[in-house]
Formats: sequence, structure tokens, C-alpha cells
Amino acid sequence: MFDALPHTRDACVARDQNDPLRPFRERFLLPDGVIYLDGNSLGPIPRAAPDVLHRTIVREWGYDLIGSWNSAGWFDMPVRLGDRIGKLLGAEAGQTVVCDTTSINLFKALHAAIALRPDRDVVVAESGSFPTDLYIIEGAMNSAGRPMQRRLIGADGASLEALLDQRVAVVVLSHVDYRSGAILDMEAVTRKIHDAGALAIWDVCHSAGVIELAFDHHAVDFMIGCTYKYLNGGPGSPAFIAVARAHQANARHPLSGWWGHADPFSFERDFKPDAGIKRFLCGTPPIISLRGIDVALDTLDGIVMSAIRQKSLALTELFIARVNALVPALKIVSPREAKLRGSQVSIAFNNGYAVVQAMIERGVIGDFRAPDIMRFGFAPLYIRYADVWDAAEILAECIRAEVWRDPRYERKLAVT
Amino acid sequence: MFDALPHTRDACVARDQNDPLRPFRERFLLPDGVIYLDGNSLGPIPRAAPDVLHRTIVREWGYDLIGSWNSAGWFDMPVRLGDRIGKLLGAEAGQTVVCDTTSINLFKALHAAIALRPDRDVVVAESGSFPTDLYIIEGAMNSAGRPMQRRLIGADGASLEALLDQRVAVVVLSHVDYRSGAILDMEAVTRKIHDAGALAIWDVCHSAGVIELAFDHHAVDFMIGCTYKYLNGGPGSPAFIAVARAHQANARHPLSGWWGHADPFSFERDFKPDAGIKRFLCGTPPIISLRGIDVALDTLDGIVMSAIRQKSLALTELFIARVNALVPALKIVSPREAKLRGSQVSIAFNNGYAVVQAMIERGVIGDFRAPDIMRFGFAPLYIRYADVWDAAEILAECIRAEVWRDPRYERKLAVT
Repeated sequence: MFDALPHTRDACVARDQNDPLRPFRERFLLPDGVIYLDGNSLGPIPRAAPDVLHRTIVREWGYDLIGSWNSAGWFDMPVRLGDRIGKLLGAEAGQTVVCDTTSINLFKALHAAIALRPDRDVVVAESGSFPTDLYIIEGAMNSAGRPMQRRLIGADGASLEALLDQRVAVVVLSHVDYRSGAILDMEAVTRKIHDAGALAIWDVCHSAGVIELAFDHHAVDFMIGCTYKYLNGGPGSPAFIAVARAHQANARHPLSGWWGHADPFSFERDFKPDAGIKRFLCGTPPIISLRGIDVALDTLDGIVMSAIRQKSLALTELFIARVNALVPALKIVSPREAKLRGSQVSIAFNNGYAVVQAMIERGVIGDFRAPDIMRFGFAPLYIRYADVWDAAEILAECIRAEVWRDPRYERKLAVT
Repeated sequence: MFDALPHTRDACVARDQNDPLRPFRERFLLPDGVIYLDGNSLGPIPRAAPDVLHRTIVREWGYDLIGSWNSAGWFDMPVRLGDRIGKLLGAEAGQTVVCDTTSINLFKALHAAIALRPDRDVVVAESGSFPTDLYIIEGAMNSAGRPMQRRLIGADGASLEALLDQRVAVVVLSHVDYRSGAILDMEAVTRKIHDAGALAIWDVCHSAGVIELAFDHHAVDFMIGCTYKYLNGGPGSPAFIAVARAHQANARHPLSGWWGHADPFSFERDFKPDAGIKRFLCGTPPIISLRGIDVALDTLDGIVMSAIRQKSLALTELFIARVNALVPALKIVSPREAKLRGSQVSIAFNNGYAVVQAMIERGVIGDFRAPDIMRFGFAPLYIRYADVWDAAEILAECIRAEVWRDPRYERKLAVT
């Protein structure tokens, strides 16, 4: 799947020099002396972002004021950015919009899916799902208008196959598990779900922008995800939702705000949803944060997703190999098989919180997820092979030094 | 209620020079040669905003990256900004958060209110409400889990009094009507609603930041509103919701995202709402757009709301007087009685769309709302008496010139 891994730091540097993605690193501003392995939580800033955002702030807001809704294209941004992201999802135009948050977009998708399967009353999800997905499923079930049940994959060892039956309306899955980085086979799993007559909602927060996706080709029903991880849209930048064209005309959800109306400026008294994907919009979006997505998508211009994926796998493979060589005792929880692995490497370690803090002090930024997972994300647009080499060295150094004995690294609330 | 109005342009200029609010205009950047009477749709940019936002973009996002969730206080912004806005609402701390959009916050408030009145099945709203409020009421009723009915004030001439009975769970009202600018007596109306055993949700989009509000004193149950009009937070900046402390423990809504969890970073499997106002948060907020609110609230430092209100009334009174003097035939639909009037003056005119376009070309920015309303907003922080004088002159000039005969001003979709 990829060339032989470099076996020395010099070989890493040489590999970086010949890396076809090398120029893309220049499209980002990265602090000196930092190896940023947390792009799976918050992507770094595109080099063009300060100027583009300054223009939006000073020229569009400050000077053109209200006129910018038309002249600067503010009004069209949710759809235009949606189509740009749709390309990365493998979704043809007219099926994706950018708006609200991942949580709220999941709420909309769940309501639409439940309404599309009126004779079914079960929602299947993963017990190890990112918790907000589970919380939103609770909220959507409680507001569905009829009794719904939740079944959890992984609870009592249940598999998806064991849970799928004629009662299942919809299955919510994370394409890449936020903790382990394990990736599901979207095509095969979606087919299984469809074979059971259910619909599939894929949360692609940890794959959009870093793994090839095939929304149309895999006949996915709904995709939701955020734009601030591998898409680098900026802190809390609005999320996206993709809805298969075939479902749109019948896809209803209760967040029926005026942006989802067929004719928002007619100011009609009754809600009539837009005929297409715009029915998934709700209220007025935060324009400056939206503009961050615009400039972030520019950084992907001229790239093919397969090249990103290939380098991503090489980076994670190298990191795993180096960690295994330097600290064989560490338990790597991410899959060893490349095609099962997202763009992160997770390591279970009881003192992981302290190790991550100590690594940050040494310039390697990863993060920690309770109860014991150290996460390291490898974004191929700006992470170099030499960075991977160095990060593994620093990790090993922190383990050898038993940094967790240092009271400075005592665990506090981790909000990152 | 205010001093005698100036009767000449020179008197306006003199009044401006002695205006105690005069220094506040310096806190904004306004384009040269423009009289901006559309701050009721999108407030202008605070002078400090470009630098503060640049710092958030370059320093917090670009340099401190993920660490800014703690070090730059990103994580606390919805609550901290909520408390800052709460002061303008007359709400003690711990009752207001900034998040999502007005539409979505209304959805949450409606669900909470309906759940707080389990034996009642009617939602009362205004037939002339800003349409998204009506649309969201539809969505909330459809997802309430039990049959609900809507009754509309103004439909078939029905008054609030006539509609209030033991079936009414909640009443949704706009404090200031977006078309006419008419203001309701929040204290008296809330008392009426409470006397009927119902709850009150006030939409204060057109009064927050420009009219004194008394959330606690008037025992309001819920307030929702946007931050991009008289609060000047920037295009589409996130909205706010205030929930009376007495209701919080029992206020449930289905948008149960992780930011509303009692302990979001414990990653528990089941949703347990925060004990207080944070249960009204949902997903990760757009930080850069949030920061715009922060700097916008700084422009209000050192001001008392009564001074803003007093100048607002003088400005609208002057505009009405000048329009009446210059074009007596024009039908002013905003209330003539000062205490019934928000901070805008609305004029019904069949050719209003063309007149507004022609005025914009002449440097006076107002807006138009279907079918025939010309709206002019008067934000006391940056609008001068001389601006009012000039705006009325230019309006009269456009009417006298019959600008609607010019094909350039033919009506297109107005998205502002």
C-alpha cells in the first residue's frame, strides 16, 4: 500500500524532501518548534486565513455592511460551501449544506430517517460512540412522536449483525472511532444496513478531509461531520450535513427555521420546506466562522484524496513502528492493519494524561481522552516524516523519564 | 420624555455636539458618506473588532491552537458572554447563554415550556410574528410528543386576552414587531400570561441592546434573541437564550448535545443535563463569531440603557416629525406614542422597494420588508440627529423624484 518506511531520521528528512505533498505544508501557519499532532481535534490555521478573514471582517462587514448578504455571497455560503465539502465526501452537488453543529445536524438526520421509516421503532448506535451522538439520539427519540428504542452495538458484546432486524429504522455509526482510530468499511456496512431495510447515518468527523469517502457510490443516506478537524475550518466552525437526493423530498425534521423555507423572504405564515437540501438549514449562520471554512477548503485545491490517504497511512505506520521499537511495552489500540486505521494512532496508558502534558511541554501536541487514551493525529497536509520520527522519540523519552511522577503533570480537567 | 426636537439642521448639529452619547460613535467604524439606518438588521463593526478578531485568529487559533480552549477561555465563552448579555436583559448571572441561532434557541425554549405545562396543549403566537418563530413553533409542536395546537393573535382579530385560557401552555411574543416597530408592554403582558397559568417566551431580537429590559423584575420565563442587530456582534453571530432560574432544573429540551451535559468530558454514555443554564447548550460553538460578540459588548461599557432609550426615542420622533413635514402623505406605521415604539420607524409605501434602493444609492441605508414596508432603524450609539435630518430629506427627495419609475430600481429578491 505504500513504499518501505524510512529507518533513520535522515531517511525521514529525505522522504519529506521528495514528498509530493510537501508544498501543501506551506499553505498553513504552524508555530515554530511545534509538532502538531492534534489536527484531529482542531486543525491549524491556513496561511491565507488571516487576510481572507480580515477582508470579511473589515471590508464585507465593516464597509459593505448589510449589502454583503448579496455582494459578498453570504447568503449562498451554506450551499456553496456544502457543495465544496460534498466533493470531499463523494457527494454530487445539491446534497450537502454547511450549518449549525454536528450535534444539531445529527438531530435533523435522525428525525428525517425515523420519519422515512414510519413502521420501524429502533435506532442502533455504538456504545463506544462519541457521547454527543448518543445524547442526541436520546433527544431525537424522545421527540420522535412515537415510542422509539435504542440498541447499542458493543453492549453485552452485541454486533451490528445481531441487532439488525425489521424493527431497525436507522443506524448511526462513526466512520472512524474517535478513541481507537479504527475505521469501518462504509460500503459493506451500509449495504448490510440497507439489506435490513434500515437507513445509515455516518458521522465522518474523523474522516472528512483525510480519507476518501464515496457518499453517492456507497449509496449512503446521511453524512454529518464537523469542519474544524482535518478540514481546518477554525475553532467551532459550522458543521455539515449531506442527505441523499432520493430522500430529500420526504426528509422532514422539526428544526424548521426560515433558512429551510422554500421562499424565506416571502415571509409566509406557514412553513413550506425547500424542495431540496436547503430544507436542512435552520437559522442565520455565523458568517465569519463560515468564511474560515472557505479559505480552509482552498488549501485542498489541486490535491487528490488518495494521495492524502496514502501519506496518512505511511505516517501512522511509521509512528507505530517507531513506538514499537522504542517502547515495546506500550499498548497501541489503533488497528495494525492499514486499511482499518484512520489518520490517528491511539495508545492506551494509565499515566497517559501526564505523558501527553509532558510531551506538549516538549513541543509535541497530542491529546488525551478519558479514561486512558493518548491520541496522536497525523494530518498529511502538514505533518512530515521527520516530525513522526521526533514525536516517537519524545514519547519514548517521557515514558523513560516516568514524567507522571512529576506533580506538574497531575491530572486536571482536560477540556481539549 | 425628551427635550424639544431640533427644528433646523444646525440645531441638529448643535444637539449632536452636546449629546452625552457622542463619544460612543467613535467606538464604531462607519463608512464615509453613509447614514446607516439598518443596524436593526446588521449592526456595524466595532472599531476594536478587527484587532481583537485578528488576535483570536492569529494568536489563539494560529499559535496557541488547541490550548486556547483553556488559555483563551474559549470553553467558557457561551456562559461568560451570556452573563454579559444577561445584564442588558435585566437577568442576574447564571440565566443566559450564547449559542446556536435564535430559531434553535426558540425551539429549546418551546420544548422546555411545553414540558413545564404537561396538562396544557396550546401554543399562542402572533400571526404577524417574524415568520421563523411561527415555523419553529410548528416544528416544536410536531415534536412535542403529544398533540398540540397553535392559536394566533391577530388572526380573525383575536386578541391575546381572548385566546388565553386553561389550555394555553406558552405564549411566544416579539417584544418589538419587526415590521411596525411597535413595542409590547412586557411587564403587563407577562403578568396576564402568568395569571392564565401559562409561560412567556419573549423574542427580543429587536430590543436587546436598545431598550431597557427587566427579565428578573418582570418574572419573564424565557427570552431569546440575536446578537447581530443592536448588539453589533457581526453577521450571523450566535444567539442567546435566557431561562429563569426557577425553571432551569425542570427545563428539558431534545437538543441534548454534549455541551449541555453535567460533565461533558466524562464521556458518559447517557445524557445527564447540567444542573443550570448550561443545559441549554448543545454542540461546539463558532469561536471566531463568538469573539465578535465579546468586542461588541465592550462598546456598551459605561453606558446606562436608559440613556440609549431616551436618545432612541428622540431620534425616531425627529424622523417622524421631519417625514410628516416633508411628505405628509406618507403613512407611518410605527406607533406615534413614544413608549409604544421600538428603535425603528416603518413607513408603508407601495413603491417602497424602489425608494429604499434609491436611498441606498444616495448613501442612506434602510431596508424593505415585504409587502410594502420601508424600515429605518435608529441606533443611538452611532446615529446623529443630523443624520436623521439628512435621511428624511433624502427620503423626501426620492419620493418627489418618483424614483420607482427608474427601471434600475425594479424589485428583485431582497435578501437583506
